[in-house]
Amino acid sequence: MSATDGGRDPLTGEAPQAVLDEARRWWQTDIIDIHPGEIALRGYPIQELIGNVGFVDTIWLMLRGELPTRAQAALLEAALVASVDHGPQAPSIAIARMATTCGVPVNGAMASAINVLDDIHGGPGEQCMELYLEVDAELEGGGDLDEAARLVVQRHRDAGVRYLPGFGHRFHPLDPRKHPLLALVDDATADGVVTGRFAAIGRAVETAINVGRSKPIPMNVDGVTAVIYCELGFTPQHGRGVFILARSVGILAHTVEQLAQGGRIKGPVPKSIGYTYTGPARRPVPHEREP
Amino acid sequence: MSATDGGRDPLTGEAPQAVLDEARRWWQTDIIDIHPGEIALRGYPIQELIGNVGFVDTIWLMLRGELPTRAQAALLEAALVASVDHGPQAPSIAIARMATTCGVPVNGAMASAINVLDDIHGGPGEQCMELYLEVDAELEGGGDLDEAARLVVQRHRDAGVRYLPGFGHRFHPLDPRKHPLLALVDDATADGVVTGRFAAIGRAVETAINVGRSKPIPMNVDGVTAVIYCELGFTPQHGRGVFILARSVGILAHTVEQLAQGGRIKGPVPKSIGYTYTGPARRPVPHEREP
Amino acid sequence: MSATDGGRDPLTGEAPQAVLDEARRWWQTDIIDIHPGEIALRGYPIQELIGNVGFVDTIWLMLRGELPTRAQAALLEAALVASVDHGPQAPSIAIARMATTCGVPVNGAMASAINVLDDIHGGPGEQCMELYLEVDAELEGGGDLDEAARLVVQRHRDAGVRYLPGFGHRFHPLDPRKHPLLALVDDATADGVVTGRFAAIGRAVETAINVGRSKPIPMNVDGVTAVIYCELGFTPQHGRGVFILARSVGILAHTVEQLAQGGRIKGPVPKSIGYTYTGPARRPVPHEREP
Amino acid sequence: MSATDGGRDPLTGEAPQAVLDEARRWWQTDIIDIHPGEIALRGYPIQELIGNVGFVDTIWLMLRGELPTRAQAALLEAALVASVDHGPQAPSIAIARMATTCGVPVNGAMASAINVLDDIHGGPGEQCMELYLEVDAELEGGGDLDEAARLVVQRHRDAGVRYLPGFGHRFHPLDPRKHPLLALVDDATADGVVTGRFAAIGRAVETAINVGRSKPIPMNVDGVTAVIYCELGFTPQHGRGVFILARSVGILAHTVEQLAQGGRIKGPVPKSIGYTYTGPARRPVPHEREP
Repeated sequence: MSATDGGRDPLTGEAPQAVLDEARRWWQTDIIDIHPGEIALRGYPIQELIGNVGFVDTIWLMLRGELPTRAQAALLEAALVASVDHGPQAPSIAIARMATTCGVPVNGAMASAINVLDDIHGGPGEQCMELYLEVDAELEGGGDLDEAARLVVQRHRDAGVRYLPGFGHRFHPLDPRKHPLLALVDDATADGVVTGRFAAIGRAVETAINVGRSKPIPMNVDGVTAVIYCELGFTPQHGRGVFILARSVGILAHTVEQLAQGGRIKGPVPKSIGYTYTGPARRPVPHEREP
Repeated sequence: MSATDGGRDPLTGEAPQAVLDEARRWWQTDIIDIHPGEIALRGYPIQELIGNVGFVDTIWLMLRGELPTRAQAALLEAALVASVDHGPQAPSIAIARMATTCGVPVNGAMASAINVLDDIHGGPGEQCMELYLEVDAELEGGGDLDEAARLVVQRHRDAGVRYLPGFGHRFHPLDPRKHPLLALVDDATADGVVTGRFAAIGRAVETAINVGRSKPIPMNVDGVTAVIYCELGFTPQHGRGVFILARSVGILAHTVEQLAQGGRIKGPVPKSIGYTYTGPARRPVPHEREP
Repeated sequence: MSATDGGRDPLTGEAPQAVLDEARRWWQTDIIDIHPGEIALRGYPIQELIGNVGFVDTIWLMLRGELPTRAQAALLEAALVASVDHGPQAPSIAIARMATTCGVPVNGAMASAINVLDDIHGGPGEQCMELYLEVDAELEGGGDLDEAARLVVQRHRDAGVRYLPGFGHRFHPLDPRKHPLLALVDDATADGVVTGRFAAIGRAVETAINVGRSKPIPMNVDGVTAVIYCELGFTPQHGRGVFILARSVGILAHTVEQLAQGGRIKGPVPKSIGYTYTGPARRPVPHEREP
Repeated sequence: MSATDGGRDPLTGEAPQAVLDEARRWWQTDIIDIHPGEIALRGYPIQELIGNVGFVDTIWLMLRGELPTRAQAALLEAALVASVDHGPQAPSIAIARMATTCGVPVNGAMASAINVLDDIHGGPGEQCMELYLEVDAELEGGGDLDEAARLVVQRHRDAGVRYLPGFGHRFHPLDPRKHPLLALVDDATADGVVTGRFAAIGRAVETAINVGRSKPIPMNVDGVTAVIYCELGFTPQHGRGVFILARSVGILAHTVEQLAQGGRIKGPVPKSIGYTYTGPARRPVPHEREP
């Protein structure tokens, strides 16, 4: 059987061209189109993008499909700058450094590190966006913002949530990234760049959380970047992804620094500290075992 | 034994404070300093960086220790924009998409993908920087650039290298990213932002590679971004890392798009294509095996 | 201030020995105890384990704390053998092969692949164990097995679950691993090695799923290994982990085979197939953008 | 244009069936053949393997293409048992535990950990196999074993290698895994299961390394498992892979233990230890920057 006799594909019994056409639809994308000598991102020829749009513009274009205004890009940029690093006590950074001492190349150290930016270490920003969107949905068709925030906070507490994502920090009594970022959102609101709706929601949630508390639980970096990402129309999944792009910068910087410092198979703590064994005392392997 | 009787640590036999002080030096960094309510990157308080410096400035600061000039940042930015994506045929992008259909979250899909940006898929830029630096070293104390390039190219060919990193492309006869990026380097050279030494080296290597060839092997995106990173004083390791930061944008965009498309446990090719089995025919498991 | 004057640690204000003792409790384990010249796993000196217990015994010991009987180990072993591979159409295997062509070493290729054995690709066995345990819990204090299975199946269907984990296969009308594994469980039940409770539960769930269907949805490899892991007292988390140990064998075999085959930056499909671009047509980058 | 008019594929200009046939050869494997209702590993139907061959037999079959004898499998098994864990000070184990506290599922924690079993942390066994094979090659056509070992050791020292892979241990003066494994190799040699050639080579290398030393550098677990893998005919790449399979057991056990212990975003060291900042003192962000 051959293709030129108008035959059927022996494996599928279909016309070969139909099988081929279907196979070509296996991977589909709106993002990039490539032909020999040609690359276009979201329709824009790469040679026109280079030198004309910024890196943050390109992040936005790739994720959203269109270019941002300069003011939108500036707000996203501030959130990215704020999120690049939180030091070698963070598991992601420590993992990158340890991986490097195991002979892992830069890409591998970054991969092992980025991989742990999961629900607990990389998820609170995304989860806080969902929280704000929940308040936003509560307000559909009108209603009082403070009441909606109070209701949503109560709902999460009733569900057993102890720490609402985006609020409180186990290290910083007041996260130094909160006020400068919130100020930029307020400026952008005044300029009509964003509506300010999510800044208001974030503040209402903060108020609801702190009712009746003597020791405050202020908005943290996740809570304020969640405001920004929501204001700019990103989805929660985007939120986690954009945080990862930012934190990758810190991960890379620590990887390169550890490479320069050297060290081989560097464990988490020095040998002088070690770890505590809490298992059974020495015992012999039984000579006879049950069959 | 207790710490207050001036005793020794029972495990190490050292003074406890000395053991403690040594343990605190286990992890060291020049990059970030954190105290409750305070974060400083390379000495700059985070609240002053936010809104005042760009994301590309921050990448530079984190990797190099100092802020770049605006012109330096602009050149780095162009290289980043040029490198964000090369489509779903690239294994890194395909892996991110496949991972997403396996239930892996955004961080995990990005990790599995970034992990493969190793020597072959993510290394040519770094390797091309090393090639340029080899020509640069050859020129120390004077000498002819074209001759040095010719000599280095010959050395690699004699060592059995078939494809010099940074030149030629299996898909693009002419990489559309080459000329716009090279033009930006030339402008920056004219403005005194960079010396132009590595643009000259890159061009000399390109000439040396193409001597006697009818079908040209032009500089590709790795070759021209390697020029930029060398001009800006980055190390080859930085080069690979910065490429990864850029390509992470494409990886994230395709991850989010695949999430939207859905699909479960999506293999590389459709079932109608499948794969070819080339192993032994069916055979029975032997009842008796040699002891 | 020094440790020998009975001073306080300048950083924490605590006695240095107390800080040190607390630091030693940061990492704790029941699994392994190591001293110079000594390694003990769950209390057993490594030199006594070597040559006296098998690899499957050691897997059990490491996860469960005690050695299994030979019959328990044999049942676990059969489940492991059954799970090593399902071919290059599985994303995990394809990823390992693609990673290899990117220059990633064996460890990295295995990591990128294992990483995708997440909820959808690696989770059904674990989820099926949870399903069986749900039926088991339903039966506490007596009750009819078939009724309990029917009730649990209905509960999941009411919750919108379309495919119950462990049943049906998009490729195999009947999974060839089902009957031989189930036969081994029945033999082990007859021999008093296991109770047979979860084999009965699995069959009852299968019956409940198939009521009123003309085209059967039989138990698959996840459903039958879930029976085995439940019978042997493993937790669902163990279940996913043990599956990963098994599938790692296939991942490694395909990695090594791809290394032998060669190939560089091998995309998911050949160039002749490529992918379909579904995004916007070519358009110029706007010269002016909103500020 | 359609397939049934004997036309050409519009994209490639080839006959559609020819394009399809070529696409089916994109992924090829000797390892596994799958059809609806059928799975065969290296030609053996899976239903015959289950219950009849062991897990270690299957590892061998998958990697080597044929089943081992029982004695070969027993020797491989001992090497696997010896390699499952070396405690939470090993970066791989620590990374799995830290990842778990970040919300990463079992597969992801294992991936981040396995990924760091690279040249330094997972490579010495493979490298030691290469060293033994280098001595073996030196002996081709006859020659003295001790002299060949001395020569190869000297060659590596001349090349600047300070620690030969497989010898010496920074923690154990004598690795407790050495003698029991070597005794098993000697027994297998006496029984004709292996030739004993690589045990002799390993011992000769050990002797060559220790000439003129007062403090001995004995063979370690990598050195003795390298003897076993070479005796059994595995390649160095197999060696690294098989080590990873074994260490995955420890990685999984520690992952599951950490899940049970709980902990959120657990850094490498407790807060009371922290890290040392060695970078620039606080400084203001410059108001004006060079253009």
